[in-house]
Amino acid sequence: MAKFFGTPDGIHVGQQFIDRAELSKLNVHRPTQGGIHGNRSEGADSIVLSGGYSGDADEGDYIIYTGHGGQNANTRRQERDQSVDDPGNAGLITSKVLGLPVRVIRGANLKSPFSPPSGYVYGGLFEVSDVWTEIDSNGYRLIKFKLERLPEQAELVSATRPITDPAFATSTVTRRIRDTSVSRKVKEMYGNHCQICGTVVPGIGERLYSEGAHVRPLGRPHLGDDALENLLCLCPNHHTELDIGGMVILDDYSLARTADLARFADLSFRADHQLHPSNATYQRELWIKLES
Amino acid sequence: MAKFFGTPDGIHVGQQFIDRAELSKLNVHRPTQGGIHGNRSEGADSIVLSGGYSGDADEGDYIIYTGHGGQNANTRRQERDQSVDDPGNAGLITSKVLGLPVRVIRGANLKSPFSPPSGYVYGGLFEVSDVWTEIDSNGYRLIKFKLERLPEQAELVSATRPITDPAFATSTVTRRIRDTSVSRKVKEMYGNHCQICGTVVPGIGERLYSEGAHVRPLGRPHLGDDALENLLCLCPNHHTELDIGGMVILDDYSLARTADLARFADLSFRADHQLHPSNATYQRELWIKLES
Repeated sequence: MAKFFGTPDGIHVGQQFIDRAELSKLNVHRPTQGGIHGNRSEGADSIVLSGGYSGDADEGDYIIYTGHGGQNANTRRQERDQSVDDPGNAGLITSKVLGLPVRVIRGANLKSPFSPPSGYVYGGLFEVSDVWTEIDSNGYRLIKFKLERLPEQAELVSATRPITDPAFATSTVTRRIRDTSVSRKVKEMYGNHCQICGTVVPGIGERLYSEGAHVRPLGRPHLGDDALENLLCLCPNHHTELDIGGMVILDDYSLARTADLARFADLSFRADHQLHPSNATYQRELWIKLES
Repeated sequence: MAKFFGTPDGIHVGQQFIDRAELSKLNVHRPTQGGIHGNRSEGADSIVLSGGYSGDADEGDYIIYTGHGGQNANTRRQERDQSVDDPGNAGLITSKVLGLPVRVIRGANLKSPFSPPSGYVYGGLFEVSDVWTEIDSNGYRLIKFKLERLPEQAELVSATRPITDPAFATSTVTRRIRDTSVSRKVKEMYGNHCQICGTVVPGIGERLYSEGAHVRPLGRPHLGDDALENLLCLCPNHHTELDIGGMVILDDYSLARTADLARFADLSFRADHQLHPSNATYQRELWIKLES
């Protein structure tokens, strides 16, 4: 089953479902058995929380979730280590490295103020913000994940107030890297190689990381297009530099410092990819007007 | 007046204030005149919205705000271009480049569902997500800013529902770069040079960008310390690689690929900065346990 990232059309946070068959039919959580829908290459697109592990936690805005595997099918007792090669666990690790959104579904069996009275409820999109290992009381290795609710969604449906992680009370978010389905496409086209410097950022288990950069920004007032003609595959350094106006794109797709328009590099394109010239022009004029 | 970033102790979102003098006394917005408290080198730490420009907008979760300058003091009519060298405008641009949080205060004069019936109300911390120029109907240049509300704060106080920017309806956030007061310190110590590769990412107007990277992660379950002994100044590429487990820190503060422990670089430290060895050990073991 191919993965589908994001909230399916017509599904909303707080929507309830009778059983796993209905979750599957509506593409909220495809498999009718198993808590994680994922694999190593694509990532994981959904998980079901049903309270299988005692150390798990559900604070609404963030969740501690134990991976899959190593339990006796009858007794549910842990009798082996969990493996990072299990497709579900590997998928959630890939989702962390690539920053893919994971649908979270809560079951009635879950002991949580956010679980539904019966059946299942859709809790929205989360990011896998953390992964680590723990040794349980019998000495078996568990793979643990922290998931954090993504902003810009409908409000959480709950009787109680979500608790914010106290560790972040004094922190602020300085940059948010936005992703769209088209930006995943451009990263795939270039195998995560930066179109400016060729850098690929390596992650755990030979996973690779890059960013899709919109040349003309999305959103008001720029109204840039979420299309390949407006996207580059860049390393985080060059994406940052593009976003904060350190460089501009010239008409021949070379790059220049905004301060003095000195050329310092060229963009490399595949034969089947090109920017629309108007997007390069927009980016350049936006920043040149702010330089002086 | 030195800048202070973040919400002052004892101040909360939705708190109301009688007048500008009270805002100033409680360090919510220091100057008793002027909408922006900022300068080019430090950034801007607070703004007051009072509805001076007709093109401005307040959607609760995001705000369109016109910069300072060029108006006739008596008629309030625009009679000159706005300048990026105006300290307030330059401060907001610096806050965008460095990702500094800006306190937003709404005044009763503001035509917005979020403005208070009288006096002023504290709206919380925002990031400057965008900056651009516009030409007004008389041909004068205005400097415009978009501010977006940072997540992980108390709920917005309003009679109406905040509207999400439709341009982002299909996007997700793949990485969030968190910042703390200590991470600002480490970036300053190294003049924004990456401790691994020496890179500095340039922004508009010769502003510089780097990231403070926590070696042992903040928050549960890691409980890393927000202290210099747990922080590095890194470029976005190396910060990403550290966060997604592509590299580990060895006991001699050299760096190795997690996959094969092959050394590829060293960390450079100033004489007055060092990691606590336990933080390097924690980071290394965390990822080595997830490699196999």
